[in-house]
Amino acid sequence: MIAYINREFIEEKDTVLHTGDLSIQRGFAIFDYFRTRNFIPLFIDQYLNRFFNSAAMIGLQPLHTKEELKGVINELIFRNNIAESGFKMILTGGYSADSFEPALPNFIILQQPLQLPTKEKFHKGISIILHEYMRDLPEIKSTNYLMAIWLRDKVKQQKADEVLYVKDNVALEFPRANVFAVTKAGTVVTPEENVLNGITRMMVLQLAEKKYTVEKRPLTVEELYNAAEVFLTSTTRRILPVLKINDQIISEGKPGAITLNLYNSFLRFEEEFCK
Amino acid sequence: MIAYINREFIEEKDTVLHTGDLSIQRGFAIFDYFRTRNFIPLFIDQYLNRFFNSAAMIGLQPLHTKEELKGVINELIFRNNIAESGFKMILTGGYSADSFEPALPNFIILQQPLQLPTKEKFHKGISIILHEYMRDLPEIKSTNYLMAIWLRDKVKQQKADEVLYVKDNVALEFPRANVFAVTKAGTVVTPEENVLNGITRMMVLQLAEKKYTVEKRPLTVEELYNAAEVFLTSTTRRILPVLKINDQIISEGKPGAITLNLYNSFLRFEEEFCK
Repeated sequence: MIAYINREFIEEKDTVLHTGDLSIQRGFAIFDYFRTRNFIPLFIDQYLNRFFNSAAMIGLQPLHTKEELKGVINELIFRNNIAESGFKMILTGGYSADSFEPALPNFIILQQPLQLPTKEKFHKGISIILHEYMRDLPEIKSTNYLMAIWLRDKVKQQKADEVLYVKDNVALEFPRANVFAVTKAGTVVTPEENVLNGITRMMVLQLAEKKYTVEKRPLTVEELYNAAEVFLTSTTRRILPVLKINDQIISEGKPGAITLNLYNSFLRFEEEFCK
Repeated sequence: MIAYINREFIEEKDTVLHTGDLSIQRGFAIFDYFRTRNFIPLFIDQYLNRFFNSAAMIGLQPLHTKEELKGVINELIFRNNIAESGFKMILTGGYSADSFEPALPNFIILQQPLQLPTKEKFHKGISIILHEYMRDLPEIKSTNYLMAIWLRDKVKQQKADEVLYVKDNVALEFPRANVFAVTKAGTVVTPEENVLNGITRMMVLQLAEKKYTVEKRPLTVEELYNAAEVFLTSTTRRILPVLKINDQIISEGKPGAITLNLYNSFLRFEEEFCK
């Protein structure tokens, strides 16, 4: 597999950073993650916009323009020749002289084969637990997953698939996905503040707005428990129904009509995008 | 300079990690930092204990025993031949197959020359600002400094030297140091919960307990503003008086008697340790 580091295409196994990099020393880096479908990078403009926004918000200057990056990405798609893949772009705080002040960033692009959840997986849905937490600087897609990884044992112990961050009784987001609820009246609700601006979330919102009443606003934990349907959105999982929250069954334990409708709309939307 | 990575002594410039390491991918690593004085690693047992505690709390298994590590550290002191130095030990989440689940850790030791603040610097003191924040898993010395580095612009803009994290009107800690206050009645107070267990803090507490009334308990922001003296403790700075909080002068703008006394006691304590 070929990867890209700073301004060079190199073998993925040779992509190394010196231990002085701020990502290693201080967990100081941002990243983004998008995927290709049939060799086409899905919603690439939106992902690049978010990547550049994260960089600006954290005070790091990307090494390339968006157009240059598209060229690099297309070159990797051509060289690696994997139809269905995930791309990770990481921009770090660089080799800091004092291990604290950001320097010239290091930039890495890694491509890997990616398998999305099957339709069976969609219909099986997932069960989740809740955890009181809000990510630091949640609008920035930083590499800070300390809490997420620390929580993995709790998730396993409780035989759940995912943990949803909640803060002061308001649902926020999953460590790597956004949350949606559908009220009993059929309104699609998703939190807007203190969450990452998920690109799949953005696309699903666009699709939902054509058919349903949509509200971007704080979603209380109580509303979540009382929802007709709950689902997550993520780049690597598209849409997955949440069918259990702690011990409470949601949507009678099977994907709800609106979740299913949005899932099918999203699949068609992807197809259209790639035509 | 010679460094150490996993089980090898190598040139510091050759200490690299593959980009698949969880420290780069997910900011998932712990570390510790101690210093040598006249070739002697100060309070090494305490630092090693904290390092092993951080590792255990986060679920990483160190590659060495404490005794083995002492041997490696002594070998580095001998080879690099720097009397006054700082040692950083980093233990990462390793090369994770799925970029999320920790694997066999990578372990790095880096040694660098270190200059501590002069007596002039001590007498000049520092000015600080406050910021509402509590570190994730604060008892763990993780590499998560996203907020600390993000705040450096705010600190500069306000012409301060440091930022103190406060949460719900309770003072916690600096990004890389602990906080102490001395009340007008001469009681030495330092927070005990939701802060890192600083080794210099621990030593200063031992010295303070011989002479003063000491309280380890929540310290309110109001108490801080009304304190007779405020100071920080850190490995790289020993004790530094806080002489300004936002616009308010503390201790008439010069180091207080108890701060000075503890500073001198600490210097003597260091000397004794190295005899």
